Amino acid sequence: MSRIAYVNGQYVPQRDAVVNIEDRGYQFADGVYEVCEVSRGRIVDAPKHLARLQRSLGELRIAEPTPTPVLAMIMREVIRRNRVRDGIVYLQITRGVARRDHGFPLHPVKPSLVVTAKTLSVERRQQTAARGIRVVTVPDNRWGRVDIKSTSLLPNVLARQAARDQGAQEAWFVDADGFVTEGASSNAWIVKDDGRIVTRPATNEILAGITRSVVLDVLAALQMKLEERPFTPEEASTAAEAFVTASSQIVMPVVAIDGRPVGTGQPGPVAARLRDEFHRFSQFS
Amino acid sequence: MSRIAYVNGQYVPQRDAVVNIEDRGYQFADGVYEVCEVSRGRIVDAPKHLARLQRSLGELRIAEPTPTPVLAMIMREVIRRNRVRDGIVYLQITRGVARRDHGFPLHPVKPSLVVTAKTLSVERRQQTAARGIRVVTVPDNRWGRVDIKSTSLLPNVLARQAARDQGAQEAWFVDADGFVTEGASSNAWIVKDDGRIVTRPATNEILAGITRSVVLDVLAALQMKLEERPFTPEEASTAAEAFVTASSQIVMPVVAIDGRPVGTGQPGPVAARLRDEFHRFSQFS
Repeated sequence: MSRIAYVNGQYVPQRDAVVNIEDRGYQFADGVYEVCEVSRGRIVDAPKHLARLQRSLGELRIAEPTPTPVLAMIMREVIRRNRVRDGIVYLQITRGVARRDHGFPLHPVKPSLVVTAKTLSVERRQQTAARGIRVVTVPDNRWGRVDIKSTSLLPNVLARQAARDQGAQEAWFVDADGFVTEGASSNAWIVKDDGRIVTRPATNEILAGITRSVVLDVLAALQMKLEERPFTPEEASTAAEAFVTASSQIVMPVVAIDGRPVGTGQPGPVAARLRDEFHRFSQFS
Repeated sequence: MSRIAYVNGQYVPQRDAVVNIEDRGYQFADGVYEVCEVSRGRIVDAPKHLARLQRSLGELRIAEPTPTPVLAMIMREVIRRNRVRDGIVYLQITRGVARRDHGFPLHPVKPSLVVTAKTLSVERRQQTAARGIRVVTVPDNRWGRVDIKSTSLLPNVLARQAARDQGAQEAWFVDADGFVTEGASSNAWIVKDDGRIVTRPATNEILAGITRSVVLDVLAALQMKLEERPFTPEEASTAAEAFVTASSQIVMPVVAIDGRPVGTGQPGPVAARLRDEFHRFSQFS
């Protein structure tokens, strides 16, 4: 079955799904996006993702291409047309098509809207979680507004590839003070020997992950102790456990950092428990 | 006349010139570009632009979509088909189309190549140069590899728009130490009272402008005194002159910085002379 994408009002086979070369997303990375998990045919935490999308658009002064309820409807329709039961749905909005000029178009143009969906194997993701992933650290050389979920992702691309080149699956950015900010496409967490869970506060230095926020809900509900503060790769390496969170990965154990094993070198019980509990605290729609 | 663009092997009307939504340029800003001036139907300093393009591609490990002489040929053909006598030619290369994944495609894909050209009025640019432009300063919040001419331009877009919002035409980025790095799409220069010309060295903090390098040639040939060092907005405001360089603007006088007049508040003789001499030191092809 060929995949179907939604592009600016039409559902089209993905191989024919195109945007103009003067779309500002293509020439300037002038756009934002969201990735939501799809679980048993339903979107996980859509309202939170759509609220963050609104914020990203607002920060960049990009108009909504269509009201939020319509966005949600389009996402559901793309999921349906692609028969995705478990996987992800991707939504991208750019400032639109205009003659190339760095400043915003002088005559407002309609923002571009693209939605795609794809199946991801639940089994394979569970197998990955059972093995855990390896991360490497890289200097955080990104721009100052990574709190906006923009498509300005070239540093993330290079970081992820640096991880892959070293046989790892994710890269953790490390700031000038030596603290982990976040992963190339995930938030970073550690578990201390006494069970305290540590993650960086969601300031301008990181993206406020939706999965991250739901994990905070899980921790509160299960009365697990949280410390929102930065940590170093060294502290992570000597922690009991480490893990990352992302919509496409939920809670994913980290078993090595820069080649050094974390804890026992195996996925730990806290990450496993959070992963198991996660969907109890999610909102399905 | 409708504009003609070159896209991946074909010359097409620009309104029909499209790329796939999974082009990595669209989803990740995973691409590079060049803008060359076109003067009297010829490309200005094409070899230098193409050499910089090779470097950008190399830094990002993007393959050449076609050998450099063919790129030059395509640029000339796009200029011809658009009957551009004076203006610019734009060339963009991205890593290509692949199923969305931050890391480089596991199976190499063909990079995407887009070339467009447009006419710019020589008269209007001369009028702008006769008036000079106003700049505002903004914190430099860009990523650490702005020496690569990538399409990761969202901070540049926001900076340029901040300038426009304040009635200015360009923004100068200022680093954490208070020094000007460069403009949103130009290099920044000042002229001291004694005629010394100051511009920031071309390290990783700025893009090594081709127009900048030709102006260095002009200065050397005319035995004008150059200091390659950073300067502050305050030093610029109290300088005799200020100007910016860019392929589409050549040498453009700056008459105000953050609302404070530079020198007499009028374009100065040094910028005018450099602008006049510039094409004598350019290479046309």
